[in-house]
Amino acid sequence: MMKLKAVFYHAGCPVCIAAEDKLAEAIDAARYDVEIVHLGDNKSRIKEAEEAGIKSVPAVLLEGTAFHINFGANLSDLS
Amino acid sequence: MMKLKAVFYHAGCPVCIAAEDKLAEAIDAARYDVEIVHLGDNKSRIKEAEEAGIKSVPAVLLEGTAFHINFGANLSDLS
Repeated sequence: MMKLKAVFYHAGCPVCIAAEDKLAEAIDAARYDVEIVHLGDNKSRIKEAEEAGIKSVPAVLLEGTAFHINFGANLSDLS
Repeated sequence: MMKLKAVFYHAGCPVCIAAEDKLAEAIDAARYDVEIVHLGDNKSRIKEAEEAGIKSVPAVLLEGTAFHINFGANLSDLS
């Protein structure tokens, strides 16, 4: 089976880490390829996140749909 | 194995339905018992959601930690 795509974007903030530990971790790895992207360390990927509709981190992109999880930092403050 | 507890709270709003279809659906059912609660239809459970730290829907409670997902409606507008 071709796996679905999940991308979890964060910036290492405490809110981000809580979301990674609990929510990204809860995603079914049998059905989803889960990629974890630290936008503070990978600034080259901020544009891709913005284009996917992500405004803040932590956020998860599930099959192209952006879900913001609580609030850690604005994407505009990371670049 | 004892399953972990996930409670997805929503109120039937479009943002809630998108989150249920994609995010609640992505949770690993082999590890989590996922309960879906419509707070508009189950007003008696609003207090429990509030006490868990939930301020708005859609939201998911994972092992007691509240994660707000995008923004559909304030809990205070549902009661």
